[in-house]
Amino acid sequence: MINLAFLAKYQEPVRQRLAEVLQGGDPIRHILRYHVGIESRRGKPEVRTGKMLRPSLTLFMAEQLGAEDRCSLHAAVALELIHNFSLIHDDIEDNDKLRRGHPAVWDLIGVPKAINAGDLMITLALLEGVTAGTEVVQCLLEAMRDMVDGQALDLEYESQWTSPEEYRAMILLKTGALFRCAFELPGIIAGADEETERRLGAFGEELGMLFQIRDDVLGIWGTTADLGRKPGSDLVKKKKSYPLVAAHQRANETEQRQLERAMGTATNTETDVAGVVKLLNRLGIRADADAQMGEHRARAEEHLRFLPIAASAKDVLLELFVQLEPSVAENGPGTVL
Amino acid sequence: MINLAFLAKYQEPVRQRLAEVLQGGDPIRHILRYHVGIESRRGKPEVRTGKMLRPSLTLFMAEQLGAEDRCSLHAAVALELIHNFSLIHDDIEDNDKLRRGHPAVWDLIGVPKAINAGDLMITLALLEGVTAGTEVVQCLLEAMRDMVDGQALDLEYESQWTSPEEYRAMILLKTGALFRCAFELPGIIAGADEETERRLGAFGEELGMLFQIRDDVLGIWGTTADLGRKPGSDLVKKKKSYPLVAAHQRANETEQRQLERAMGTATNTETDVAGVVKLLNRLGIRADADAQMGEHRARAEEHLRFLPIAASAKDVLLELFVQLEPSVAENGPGTVL
Repeated sequence: MINLAFLAKYQEPVRQRLAEVLQGGDPIRHILRYHVGIESRRGKPEVRTGKMLRPSLTLFMAEQLGAEDRCSLHAAVALELIHNFSLIHDDIEDNDKLRRGHPAVWDLIGVPKAINAGDLMITLALLEGVTAGTEVVQCLLEAMRDMVDGQALDLEYESQWTSPEEYRAMILLKTGALFRCAFELPGIIAGADEETERRLGAFGEELGMLFQIRDDVLGIWGTTADLGRKPGSDLVKKKKSYPLVAAHQRANETEQRQLERAMGTATNTETDVAGVVKLLNRLGIRADADAQMGEHRARAEEHLRFLPIAASAKDVLLELFVQLEPSVAENGPGTVL
Repeated sequence: MINLAFLAKYQEPVRQRLAEVLQGGDPIRHILRYHVGIESRRGKPEVRTGKMLRPSLTLFMAEQLGAEDRCSLHAAVALELIHNFSLIHDDIEDNDKLRRGHPAVWDLIGVPKAINAGDLMITLALLEGVTAGTEVVQCLLEAMRDMVDGQALDLEYESQWTSPEEYRAMILLKTGALFRCAFELPGIIAGADEETERRLGAFGEELGMLFQIRDDVLGIWGTTADLGRKPGSDLVKKKKSYPLVAAHQRANETEQRQLERAMGTATNTETDVAGVVKLLNRLGIRADADAQMGEHRARAEEHLRFLPIAASAKDVLLELFVQLEPSVAENGPGTVL
């Protein structure tokens, strides 16, 4: 579990503003409040929001860069809403019935209304973004376009095995774009110079890549304690994440057939999952993923050096990297099997 | 069929700009070009766009109000793209396999990719809108919010019988909002005063209502020549359109059961359809719908009087109302049965 103590103070203002933006007595706004985790299914106020990593990072960075508070909050909340709309639609597209351990929106209200609920969330997100100005909404829209293009590739790749390079290009869009945006927004609001703005975006992208590959590693080697998922959960879900595509490229023909069978059959038994994890370990995929993460971290640190923020703030962000280190999986099935 | 000769000259610039906004070699942009009707399924350029009523009206009014050309084109194209995104998602939500006589997007590429394609179209629409300024994108987003709220009500009403008043409130959102926006946009770009802007929006809303009720009338009494649909097509699709909810309110208990059976059973035979049309005629629903249209037309004409545009332009818009008159259905099954 990531320790985000330094980001915790931003969660309450984000939650409060989410409640304002999503207020209304109609069923669709209720379900949006349920989805972001500020209301129970029965309509009672609740605190069940996720980490809210993106808006928290936006607000942390806004503080460091001296960006105007109210504007930054609008931008941060818009970003969180865009992330959340994508979850509503992705859950339909991926046939995922659970989101953060609770029924996904489409599982509660059906696919038609859930598509429409996502559309409303997009709209409310961008209406919130517009209050922070044209440049903010432009930045949000560009990130959203890249994210949706990334999702298109992800859906395309379901029916084929891609190279690790293609996979990385896909997650750079699907995950990297919103992280990039999280750091670009405070720069825009603070009126940062062009070079700083470029570094902010690049830093965010590297952090996003690191975050996604870590997520992929946890999906294979993570323990139940890590983010509440079971070891090998991505294998059960047939998610061809980074370790899988890297393994497929490195595998011999027999091993490739094993991977293809495991990701193609109707359900993976525990033995199937254990067998695939064993193969990934034999092929050295965990070390490969660690090396990838190391590279993204190094590049992020390089960008960080150039950002015009206090040394103490840089230390805090470096600490975030330590939290993101894959050490969490040391006791996972990867080492056991 | 509506004769839109005076609007025809705007179609080519809109089509050209659509092609620019939707350019790209990826499968998702190809399918968006197919959907708006500028490309065949095999990827060949094609002219199969609909009437493009909304952007044409925006450009016509922009010309009358002296709004800047380029800005108006961006706003008009953004509006057309928002309308088109809603069609992609609505077709999934309503399980409609055909759109303008061709396979719906979801029928070609499946629901997951079609949801995502709609999301991309929203994003590209608003990126196009942003180039015309903050006020334009705000106006587009407010219309989109109302449209989506209207669609939420429409989906809600599938499982219940609403009053004609509730139905009208729903279509005011679902259809009225984009028509309102079509007329507000040129006002914003031309820098119209507050009163003119209010009149423009109100005129658009009345036109939208007129347009939707006319569409509902054609869905029951229209001949094949009208918009290419079969008589009673909305009954076959179980669409509880204005004539149906108006009839249900006016009907006695036995007649209500007949309507509920017809809109509830698995498939309506030709005899069922003929029976319902006969009932609607007996209840005087056609006259009721005509009266509704007359009221919206009168209010639209009242707003039109106050708009600061040439008398000749007003005549052209009045001519549009004549085109929208329900006389098209005079020879439909309504009078036959």
